[in-house]
Amino acid sequence: MRHLLGIEELDADKALALLERAEHHGRAARSGETPPGSLRGKTVVQLFFEASTRTRASFEAAAKRLGADVINLSPSTSSVTKGETLLDTARNLEAMRPHALVLRHPTSGAPHFLARHLRTSILNAGDGAHEHPTQALLDAYTIRQRLGRIAGVRVAICGDISHSRVARSNALLLGKLGAEVRVAGPRTLLPPRFGEAFGVQVFDRLEPALEGADVVMALRVQRERLVGSLLPSTRDYSRSFGITRARMKLAKPGAVVMHPGPINRGVELEGTLADAPESLVLEQVEAGVAVRAAVLEALESLALPDRKDVVRGARLGRPR
Amino acid sequence: MRHLLGIEELDADKALALLERAEHHGRAARSGETPPGSLRGKTVVQLFFEASTRTRASFEAAAKRLGADVINLSPSTSSVTKGETLLDTARNLEAMRPHALVLRHPTSGAPHFLARHLRTSILNAGDGAHEHPTQALLDAYTIRQRLGRIAGVRVAICGDISHSRVARSNALLLGKLGAEVRVAGPRTLLPPRFGEAFGVQVFDRLEPALEGADVVMALRVQRERLVGSLLPSTRDYSRSFGITRARMKLAKPGAVVMHPGPINRGVELEGTLADAPESLVLEQVEAGVAVRAAVLEALESLALPDRKDVVRGARLGRPR
Amino acid sequence: MRHLLGIEELDADKALALLERAEHHGRAARSGETPPGSLRGKTVVQLFFEASTRTRASFEAAAKRLGADVINLSPSTSSVTKGETLLDTARNLEAMRPHALVLRHPTSGAPHFLARHLRTSILNAGDGAHEHPTQALLDAYTIRQRLGRIAGVRVAICGDISHSRVARSNALLLGKLGAEVRVAGPRTLLPPRFGEAFGVQVFDRLEPALEGADVVMALRVQRERLVGSLLPSTRDYSRSFGITRARMKLAKPGAVVMHPGPINRGVELEGTLADAPESLVLEQVEAGVAVRAAVLEALESLALPDRKDVVRGARLGRPR
Repeated sequence: MRHLLGIEELDADKALALLERAEHHGRAARSGETPPGSLRGKTVVQLFFEASTRTRASFEAAAKRLGADVINLSPSTSSVTKGETLLDTARNLEAMRPHALVLRHPTSGAPHFLARHLRTSILNAGDGAHEHPTQALLDAYTIRQRLGRIAGVRVAICGDISHSRVARSNALLLGKLGAEVRVAGPRTLLPPRFGEAFGVQVFDRLEPALEGADVVMALRVQRERLVGSLLPSTRDYSRSFGITRARMKLAKPGAVVMHPGPINRGVELEGTLADAPESLVLEQVEAGVAVRAAVLEALESLALPDRKDVVRGARLGRPR
Repeated sequence: MRHLLGIEELDADKALALLERAEHHGRAARSGETPPGSLRGKTVVQLFFEASTRTRASFEAAAKRLGADVINLSPSTSSVTKGETLLDTARNLEAMRPHALVLRHPTSGAPHFLARHLRTSILNAGDGAHEHPTQALLDAYTIRQRLGRIAGVRVAICGDISHSRVARSNALLLGKLGAEVRVAGPRTLLPPRFGEAFGVQVFDRLEPALEGADVVMALRVQRERLVGSLLPSTRDYSRSFGITRARMKLAKPGAVVMHPGPINRGVELEGTLADAPESLVLEQVEAGVAVRAAVLEALESLALPDRKDVVRGARLGRPR
Repeated sequence: MRHLLGIEELDADKALALLERAEHHGRAARSGETPPGSLRGKTVVQLFFEASTRTRASFEAAAKRLGADVINLSPSTSSVTKGETLLDTARNLEAMRPHALVLRHPTSGAPHFLARHLRTSILNAGDGAHEHPTQALLDAYTIRQRLGRIAGVRVAICGDISHSRVARSNALLLGKLGAEVRVAGPRTLLPPRFGEAFGVQVFDRLEPALEGADVVMALRVQRERLVGSLLPSTRDYSRSFGITRARMKLAKPGAVVMHPGPINRGVELEGTLADAPESLVLEQVEAGVAVRAAVLEALESLALPDRKDVVRGARLGRPR
């Protein structure tokens, strides 16, 4: 694997291989085993153009478990504030020969753009409302850990589908792995033709989506962005789409609840439900480190052209 | 030791054991010995909700000397800006199985609150105006290094007692270790019944507090917070409560001066005195790394429940 | 070598020795060799008072390649916001016994000031418009890699000479190493008597400076600072001083282009030229890690006075 840009580019076999390798890392972490050090001497650069606790820390923990060094860059402390283009920033980081460049960027397609122009491995840690592939992998990992399988599992993804890279990556991955995926959200937050594009069932009410579900995945409501324009109020939202213990009775007995975090308690997810045994929220976070370690390990070792050759050629060929 | 929440929860024997272990680390650092690596493969997460140079860097240096990896999180780069609760943020970090979570928070009791809900070790790096236990330990270490003992030493803590977690933690620890503690400050900055609560003598003038003192500890005046409300001006403050060479003549010959930093030179502490041989300000900083290494080492290794068991149980018990 | 404050203080022999050691690191990085670990157990502290991507990340990558731990501090997350003096901040960091303190500061001479008062090694990572010595070393390294020599090479440094620490350090170092240095810029951005002071030819037009040049170095235009006061507009600037493919025809055939980054494409440097084979921009970044590793290694191991001795003396001498 050269990059991890999105689930779109990942086939089911490769995804399953990553999950298996992640399970190995998960077991090692739980048993307190000394981390392996397979990336000792390598550097992972994280370039985050959006705030993040768990994704950045999770990649950092994964990289360090493998013995890699991590360099964190965020726009406020970088020369992006000086007006450099994304490509120039990334090319500069590439010239330091990192093992991988982990990118979070508000623009959909930013990692794909970099991958076309760079040789360094690019890991998409979230690009706009497009994809968040390691989140989908850790969600698949968590479902498999708890339910023993993914094929045939019924997953209801609920909330702001329009703006959610988590919804897109999960719909794609769970579909590829044989799950039956449904999405549900208010009409203003359902993108047109989503069902067709992603091969999922779409509902503009919560109840039919929950019926018989094995997994209910609540998405974060980005209050600051939505309320007053696409949503009348968070109260209104939670009345119609909040995942509560009462509503979980519509799902299959023993159904589990997931959330990519950070949670707005009482908005998209009832607080007591977030803390209940059927909530896998913390399992998801723990899975994140295992999955990201597997992804970092799966990258082909970087094969940058040896600039010495370029240099020698150029030097010999130039009349002096 | 499971957590270090405050000096309140620490008994004298445990404190002395930490100081002894810290002395071992201090000697090793001074002699240039290779650091021990006793926490190799572990991760220390620092969650700082307030600006800090020395405390954050000191914990980081201590953790790295022991071979641990460190992940730094501060609200501006974290999803706290997205409105997540402190407990959810901390639970998420816990799910990454860190060795310890170092917390600085503006709310008194925040680390105690987390300790009640998490299994990860919590180290209080300052909670509001409440406690700053590693600061008190490093102050005790510094006093013991210079004076050879703590029991019987007369310590005058001078300045804004009301808002000082340093004053509280020091009054508690030095008292437990047998020192005679006095506090002095302007009436507006002396909390009611402080003497009673902490078993110290309280003065609203500097001079009687300094008389016969072995150690004079100046506290930082938080100008931005106090001037115009609780203090008329910094000039006024320094005229009555500034620690100067002239005033040090009231103390015991050879008395030393301490300050937790950062210093407002010319306000609470005369600049030339801060740089004089009787100033232990830099010894305090150096002690900080040794003490924090001792604390990090003293934490019981984390015993998170193996979620695999939880998972297996849940899986077996569910009708599928 | 105790500090690296500027090229002014560095003689040619020492500079060449650093370049040779850097070439060793560069070869090792290109061949994928395991990094050496010669600074294992040491800590490098970076104190950056100005935004930076490449310099901070480059020092960090270099230090980590050598096995050192790195602690990053920037004013926004440090107690500098609490009004502490630079010297107190630095003394506090020194008390943690770092291998080196890497300083970027907006005030010319700030690292020299610290070096007079501290014993820790100070590395100047840019001080105001004064010096940026590792930038000059990496530029010299890059020129030598591509052209095989520095002595006799004609280098034209073009742009805002007045505000450029890169121009100053390069003029000094390339001069010491035998290159023929010319500078060119608009009259408003040429400091008086620069030619005399630095032993370089000064031009207020671009064309004569480019004639016969082996190396053309474009400097960044700090738009936010210059336009409206010292420059009428960036468009005007690029018409007279932008380095373009057309203008490169004035230089020697096969001449190369350099830029310290970040680039304002289309202002001081034509975009297509920045990406052309004759552009060494990315070689410069790669050289940065090698050069900084060489500098970090060349520092004499820190010999802080053992405070234990100070302490013992003081303790014995005091009447108790």
